Amino acid sequence: MIGIFDSGIGGLTVVRAIMDKLPDYDIVYFGDTARTPYGNKSGRTVVNYSLQNTEFLLDQGANLIVMACNTASSVATETVQARFNLPIYEVITPAVNQSLKMSKKMAIGIIGTRATISSGVYEEKIHEKVPDARVYSVSCPLLVPLVEEGWLKKPETRMIVKKYLHPLKVRQIDTLILGCTHYPLLKPIIAHKIGKRVSIIDSSMALAEEINHFLAENPQIDQGLSKNGKADFFVSDVTPQFEKTARSVIKQHITLKHVSL
Amino acid sequence: MIGIFDSGIGGLTVVRAIMDKLPDYDIVYFGDTARTPYGNKSGRTVVNYSLQNTEFLLDQGANLIVMACNTASSVATETVQARFNLPIYEVITPAVNQSLKMSKKMAIGIIGTRATISSGVYEEKIHEKVPDARVYSVSCPLLVPLVEEGWLKKPETRMIVKKYLHPLKVRQIDTLILGCTHYPLLKPIIAHKIGKRVSIIDSSMALAEEINHFLAENPQIDQGLSKNGKADFFVSDVTPQFEKTARSVIKQHITLKHVSL
Repeated sequence: MIGIFDSGIGGLTVVRAIMDKLPDYDIVYFGDTARTPYGNKSGRTVVNYSLQNTEFLLDQGANLIVMACNTASSVATETVQARFNLPIYEVITPAVNQSLKMSKKMAIGIIGTRATISSGVYEEKIHEKVPDARVYSVSCPLLVPLVEEGWLKKPETRMIVKKYLHPLKVRQIDTLILGCTHYPLLKPIIAHKIGKRVSIIDSSMALAEEINHFLAENPQIDQGLSKNGKADFFVSDVTPQFEKTARSVIKQHITLKHVSL
Repeated sequence: MIGIFDSGIGGLTVVRAIMDKLPDYDIVYFGDTARTPYGNKSGRTVVNYSLQNTEFLLDQGANLIVMACNTASSVATETVQARFNLPIYEVITPAVNQSLKMSKKMAIGIIGTRATISSGVYEEKIHEKVPDARVYSVSCPLLVPLVEEGWLKKPETRMIVKKYLHPLKVRQIDTLILGCTHYPLLKPIIAHKIGKRVSIIDSSMALAEEINHFLAENPQIDQGLSKNGKADFFVSDVTPQFEKTARSVIKQHITLKHVSL
């Protein structure tokens, strides 16, 4: 089945996109809610957590892994891909590819956690393909806690989003990558503050599309994936707040199973 | 020596108070920065972490433990005290005792993390001593991330503090307990928003005073504590952000040692 992990709530936006695109495929999700958030932790710690999370998903029968967390994707992809011999997807490349399709002026903004932004991975991947693209990035560490609190429409959230986006507005970007899987939940505010001329790239849709293509072209891997339309949700900590948000993102009744890593 | 643990930055305010009150006593501090924050996690998870942190401090030679985290103090004190046979201090009781000394109208407000507030431990301890006290509590989950970002004076922080304190202002409390060791770093804003007629209780000073009394009355325990004025700081994750904040709270050069639990 398809195994998906994240530090917590954000990865559920990816689960939702994969469920919409590949509704028959069985999914096992792991949210590391006992150690969330990843975005303000060191690279070494996030690599260790990503290896443990991947091991857990393999034990559950996953044979394709999605790292549905930009922080993990930014700092742990190489190590996880080197350690495990199966397809490992991350959320950076699909967003980069889509941003290069959308941007006319090649002036691209990126927002993400402190760990993601300081890794420089988005700039690197964009410049590999378009060396003279102008790329501007801003770390927005308070957006994850605001989303996890459900403050999706409050005036304080609007003010903080406006403050974070200001340097990108000044640079007149025409494309903005949401470099954290939590941020799609703030898309209405972000779109309003950055202005309607800017295309907003949400990696979850692009990622689901890419997996779909990959499976069509690799039938031997596709045949190994079970297709009963089932989804299992594991978390390392169960709290009422997380259960509530998970149900509203997935838009159906789900049962969270507790597991200690 | 005196062992002190916390989920991260907050406990350093307690370390500072103990260093000021008992400057000769050796201290070993553990900050669980790889799993921070505790305040939005379940009681079960916080109890497990507290047991592991205490074990680690014992291995380093601690023979008196301070749980310098209100979330851990609220949900894990009984279990930790039952498991280990040595003096275990928590941050709730000293703050409660001091609030009862200060309050004239017995109208006491408490602010804390979601886990601390939903435990109801402050209300319980206050009502044990003053059954008809009026107690009002508000969980303020965004204050920890704001402190950890160093947004101590920003207008957004002022707005959020004002919003959280509003229900306590309406109830005309005369005493406010800062029920999280991060909050003393926001004391100027909190004092301004709640108004100057309200006494603000910061548990770290009261706790250091209580330990001082206890050691004076228990010389056999006092003799077991080494007194070379040394302090060791261990963390489960090292980030530049944490190092910067730690030095500004402790107000001297410190070296953080990394340890995996």
